[in-house]
Amino acid sequence: MTEITANDPNRKTWVEVDEESDFPIQNLPFGIFSTKGEEKRVGVALGDKVIDVYRLAKEGYLDEGLGPDIYKNEYLNDFMSAGKEMTRKVRNRIGELFDENNNELRDMAADVQKILLDKESVTMHLPVKVGDYTDFYSSKEHATNVGTMFRDPDNALLPNWLHIPVGYHGRASSIVVSGTPIHRPKGQQKPNEDEPPVFGPCKLLDFELEMAFVTHDGNALGENIPIERADEHIFGMCLFNDWSARDIQKWEYVPLGPFLAKSFASSISPWIVTLDALEPSRCEGPEQNPAPLPYLKQSGKNNFDIELEVGITPPDSEETIVCNSNFKYMYWSMAQQLAHHSVNGCNIRCGDMMASGTISGPDRSAFGSMLEISWKGTQPVDMNDGSQRKFIQDGDTVTMRGHARANGVKIGFGEVKTEVLPAK
Amino acid sequence: MTEITANDPNRKTWVEVDEESDFPIQNLPFGIFSTKGEEKRVGVALGDKVIDVYRLAKEGYLDEGLGPDIYKNEYLNDFMSAGKEMTRKVRNRIGELFDENNNELRDMAADVQKILLDKESVTMHLPVKVGDYTDFYSSKEHATNVGTMFRDPDNALLPNWLHIPVGYHGRASSIVVSGTPIHRPKGQQKPNEDEPPVFGPCKLLDFELEMAFVTHDGNALGENIPIERADEHIFGMCLFNDWSARDIQKWEYVPLGPFLAKSFASSISPWIVTLDALEPSRCEGPEQNPAPLPYLKQSGKNNFDIELEVGITPPDSEETIVCNSNFKYMYWSMAQQLAHHSVNGCNIRCGDMMASGTISGPDRSAFGSMLEISWKGTQPVDMNDGSQRKFIQDGDTVTMRGHARANGVKIGFGEVKTEVLPAK
Repeated sequence: MTEITANDPNRKTWVEVDEESDFPIQNLPFGIFSTKGEEKRVGVALGDKVIDVYRLAKEGYLDEGLGPDIYKNEYLNDFMSAGKEMTRKVRNRIGELFDENNNELRDMAADVQKILLDKESVTMHLPVKVGDYTDFYSSKEHATNVGTMFRDPDNALLPNWLHIPVGYHGRASSIVVSGTPIHRPKGQQKPNEDEPPVFGPCKLLDFELEMAFVTHDGNALGENIPIERADEHIFGMCLFNDWSARDIQKWEYVPLGPFLAKSFASSISPWIVTLDALEPSRCEGPEQNPAPLPYLKQSGKNNFDIELEVGITPPDSEETIVCNSNFKYMYWSMAQQLAHHSVNGCNIRCGDMMASGTISGPDRSAFGSMLEISWKGTQPVDMNDGSQRKFIQDGDTVTMRGHARANGVKIGFGEVKTEVLPAK
Repeated sequence: MTEITANDPNRKTWVEVDEESDFPIQNLPFGIFSTKGEEKRVGVALGDKVIDVYRLAKEGYLDEGLGPDIYKNEYLNDFMSAGKEMTRKVRNRIGELFDENNNELRDMAADVQKILLDKESVTMHLPVKVGDYTDFYSSKEHATNVGTMFRDPDNALLPNWLHIPVGYHGRASSIVVSGTPIHRPKGQQKPNEDEPPVFGPCKLLDFELEMAFVTHDGNALGENIPIERADEHIFGMCLFNDWSARDIQKWEYVPLGPFLAKSFASSISPWIVTLDALEPSRCEGPEQNPAPLPYLKQSGKNNFDIELEVGITPPDSEETIVCNSNFKYMYWSMAQQLAHHSVNGCNIRCGDMMASGTISGPDRSAFGSMLEISWKGTQPVDMNDGSQRKFIQDGDTVTMRGHARANGVKIGFGEVKTEVLPAK
């Protein structure tokens, strides 16, 4: 496969990029944007600019053979379906074009003006048409916290958890991009054990701090993706807020799992950071004991060191950071999740999205949901404006951010930011 | 809305149709077919013929305003997205054209030859590009059987079951059309309580007799579909075999529900019978006690009387019918399922597929899965060829059939027929 050349930590760009930007020339994440009156197209973030990849191709700066029209698109799916070899070539080429020592584009002022847009002038859209969405449950700390609260503290992890990257199918239709407000869901709850269920707005609305990966084409039905080839099928990652209605969930989820407690909305960040861009921040994951079955066995650096934070901003107030976690805490790696998902012959398609499950770290400051942070509402969180939170209130804005850092280079994800509106 | 005129029980057609055909002129189900060397297109079944709806439109016999190109299509989705008013008009018009008293098309021999194809000359394809697939669990007899076997016979139904049309998200990518062989899945199982899990081919492969409905466009995110309008969003129904790996399921499904035990394949019949065609076979459902919450309340005939059967054909042998059930046994109606699914604001899109859950009747002859028929393998089923079955063996072909009958007219679904190949 083509070498990843776009990651060179010493490369500088002729575009002005702030040192602490999420999007240095070593990142180059892909998304879908539009400008006023123009159709949706593929973009790449660079500092405070958005590179119009359609124009870049149309003006002849990309020679990868896909042609410009694939970039005038509502989604990244057609581009991703070209496969990792091709998407890597395109990212490498974009890195090369914006290198400070390359004047191919830099000196063409008219082209630069068409191709390099201010981020304030564009609207970001859902980057991927999600085929099937799967949510895993791969943080040991999170599963342990939930098991401790709702089952048995002495046997918090269920017997299958250390053997299986437990997951379930989620709802694809209600995945929305950062900036899309959501409404508090309504549904059945059973607040009193001895009384019938009631219907109304959810009272225990929660976020779940997750990350998700999106896939290239995977395997045909009946085949599988072996673990050692799983990364080839992962295009990139984004931040994922798995909104959860805890009271609806509690009443509905036995025996077939979460349904309406989750399907009202999930929010993602608009930029898909390629797995290539994250290569330098690979790290080892937690020790797996007992050893996984052979189809899940891997060694080396299969996790990624990505710092994560969650903030809550009450209406007309300042933000309080309520969680600092890290993707490296994940017990099961993305490769293990994908190998497991397909081992029964389930076909993985381009544009599938797989979320990690809540990413909780070892202590309260790193817990990835209000359920855990407020310990079922028993330990309210003090907010900077003097108020307290057990769960999310109407008018609150929840923001998740994340970035990796390796070789002095910050590879950021931007943010997923969502305002919660009252139930309709 | 336009009246349904295509159901007239007295109408005869100028096409020769066997009296016991699943597809009389009162049915007119929609599907996707291809002929040798030609692209996929929309078809309608009539007796042993398939009506090429693209040609019908192209030659000017449809005047509904959609234009012919919508029928040259890989899926029915574009047609369904025109909405029920329009799909009803098209079905009404096709009924009119093939009425024995109508000579518009009948007398045009050259057109008839192009438009009316022998079913042997066509290949049927997956009719719908499924967006999100949901599986319900709406047969009280099935839920009771499962609860009796695996939990507590005295409290077989879980506390939420009589209040909620329990459901879960399923895998859309692995839904295949009748005639597509499937491979026995592999996965983790835990045959011995005290030993670690093992990996290998599923040993307890099962079918689940279900039906599914597909949707027109539904509601925007944050809105809901009120129960009294739910039927407007249902285009039609098909037979659905929810293949299940019982040993994989048992080990994986607590606490987040079925995952790899189901996602390896689901099989559907190729013809979507419209809800319009099923109107005459409406019937009342089982009494619901306790009364459902207001958003789920309905009265009148909300179920459908559809006789169902399942046969198993061992390799090179004859078929044994192992189940005779009926869709009317469903405790929760399709309208209740759809109202529930969207009550939290979850957006329903054109092309979503929602399956009923296993349709079991009151006694063993009407149980809709081998798990129930063989009562966890304790009561093997005698096959006509002298063999026995507890679950499905490699080489077996499982066939599901169904039909409604009202006013002397049979409205059939054809079949979903699937051969099980050994694990890869």
